[in-house]
Amino acid sequence: MHTLPALLDKINAYAAANPFPPAPRELYDPCDYILTLGGKRLRPALVLMAYELFQDNVDQALPAAWAVELFHNFTLMHDDIMDAAPLRRGKPTVHTKWSATAGILSGDAMLIHAYRHLARFDDSVIVADLLDTFNRVAIEVCEGQQYDLNFETRHDVTLPEYIRMIELKTAVLLGGALEMGAMCARAHENQSAHLYEFGRLAGIAFQIQDDLLDTYGDPAKFGKQVGGDILQNKKTFLVLKTLEVASGADRHELEYWMKTGPDLPVKISAVRDIFNRNGIPDLVTAEKRRYQAEAFGHFDAVEVPETRKVPLRGMMEELLVREY
Amino acid sequence: MHTLPALLDKINAYAAANPFPPAPRELYDPCDYILTLGGKRLRPALVLMAYELFQDNVDQALPAAWAVELFHNFTLMHDDIMDAAPLRRGKPTVHTKWSATAGILSGDAMLIHAYRHLARFDDSVIVADLLDTFNRVAIEVCEGQQYDLNFETRHDVTLPEYIRMIELKTAVLLGGALEMGAMCARAHENQSAHLYEFGRLAGIAFQIQDDLLDTYGDPAKFGKQVGGDILQNKKTFLVLKTLEVASGADRHELEYWMKTGPDLPVKISAVRDIFNRNGIPDLVTAEKRRYQAEAFGHFDAVEVPETRKVPLRGMMEELLVREY
Repeated sequence: MHTLPALLDKINAYAAANPFPPAPRELYDPCDYILTLGGKRLRPALVLMAYELFQDNVDQALPAAWAVELFHNFTLMHDDIMDAAPLRRGKPTVHTKWSATAGILSGDAMLIHAYRHLARFDDSVIVADLLDTFNRVAIEVCEGQQYDLNFETRHDVTLPEYIRMIELKTAVLLGGALEMGAMCARAHENQSAHLYEFGRLAGIAFQIQDDLLDTYGDPAKFGKQVGGDILQNKKTFLVLKTLEVASGADRHELEYWMKTGPDLPVKISAVRDIFNRNGIPDLVTAEKRRYQAEAFGHFDAVEVPETRKVPLRGMMEELLVREY
Repeated sequence: MHTLPALLDKINAYAAANPFPPAPRELYDPCDYILTLGGKRLRPALVLMAYELFQDNVDQALPAAWAVELFHNFTLMHDDIMDAAPLRRGKPTVHTKWSATAGILSGDAMLIHAYRHLARFDDSVIVADLLDTFNRVAIEVCEGQQYDLNFETRHDVTLPEYIRMIELKTAVLLGGALEMGAMCARAHENQSAHLYEFGRLAGIAFQIQDDLLDTYGDPAKFGKQVGGDILQNKKTFLVLKTLEVASGADRHELEYWMKTGPDLPVKISAVRDIFNRNGIPDLVTAEKRRYQAEAFGHFDAVEVPETRKVPLRGMMEELLVREY
């Protein structure tokens, strides 16, 4: 078993030992670029930690782990084009630094290279299982992105629809990463199923927390501009919960602000006041904790000694501890 | 064994029986749309015909055949965005009818669904082999598209570079389709290797023929505007051959015309005259025939009774017979 930093070292060593082909550079420079923008390598770490619940030779799971990281970066590259995002982690996005064409084609290449790494596992029965999970999750991520795009122009999005969207767009990949790690370790099917549910439910909790932090986070720790979602009129969990529980007057005031432009800093405190007087922070925190508790119930059901669970439990708890 | 029309019926029946998921429609409508624009289903037919060289139960190869067709349509959808093409087969392209965002995301989904069909083969050893070939070819197609994009702004493209580009961008997929059909039929490795070479070399011959037909084709049969490549200043096989063999005066005249705009019909006859007085049609036809002969040499080396080869030989000969 390894600590998180030791696993991250392994992931980065695998990536360095298995670079993209040397040419054409116009295709692979954007891939190298996005991979060095300082992502936390959370998803490949999940693959390896799930593997280490069951087996010791974690290097076996490195190709699957890297496949998941490449897939994630493929989605970032294409999503940035669709969202017309100028910056990612404070650096120019690929389509800004190069072109939309570069972002499309390099993203495609990165997705296919993800499949190449996946195919490297030395047992074809496991490769077929990994492929099934990877495909299922990858399609769901695309479907989630489509729902997210649809929501931008819809005015009747419900809270269950929103939860389903964040589940597809981000949570299933965390579940899939854990499931694939368990598969590489040849864990029993019901063990990998519990791990999938652990990741999926923790992922939903994490996204709810993300919505909370965007409005209520400590600016010094949050890294992004606090209140950004409010300025952009994003239909977050907080907004949808307010529309569900608030009085007519508060709903109308919220709807009024959500029709104003993004250059109105006063909007942040006004909308935050609406949230506050409707008890939204506590309601949303309770929802997050409900998903979190259900997630850890599945983790508890994984039948390995508790000592084996320490690194994965620690990382997931740390991810979910950042309350406002 | 089946005729081409019978195989096309099987492909279309498989597609109808295995539609995309019902939702979200915004994701899958563009996929359905591009698949009904009237493509010839050449690539899936190659998969099935290669299978029928060796085995009788061709339905086994249908998922792999459809995977290849979905991959091809994914490349069309993304290439149309990159080329800013308004029309495909006389109909609006996906990004024109919907948006670039739709073209990107629906293309991504179609690529992943291609992998889902590929994974359906009922023997995981074969799935792993199919995956290796599919991945190798898919990456090469992306690399070919990148070289094609690079060539647009380069002025020193050589003929060998051009051949390598068309090989990657279009020929390897024909080879891969044949190789995958043979794999589904559990053919010996050296048989599938001959079929790959047959498809690859025939694909290069086909692209050379395509360049010839664009300038010298019968307008009634060609389907596109004859002379379109000349109007667009495309660095085709004909242009690069001319730059290789012509005198300085002809080279300079050709380079002059290639700096003019696309709205100059007189350019077509002027450039055609340069080609003609340098014997380009015959030189290029000879090159095409050389690739074609080498291709059929590999087909002849496939060790199955000649009667089994009739449908595939017939289809490939018909594809390559359209001389100017």
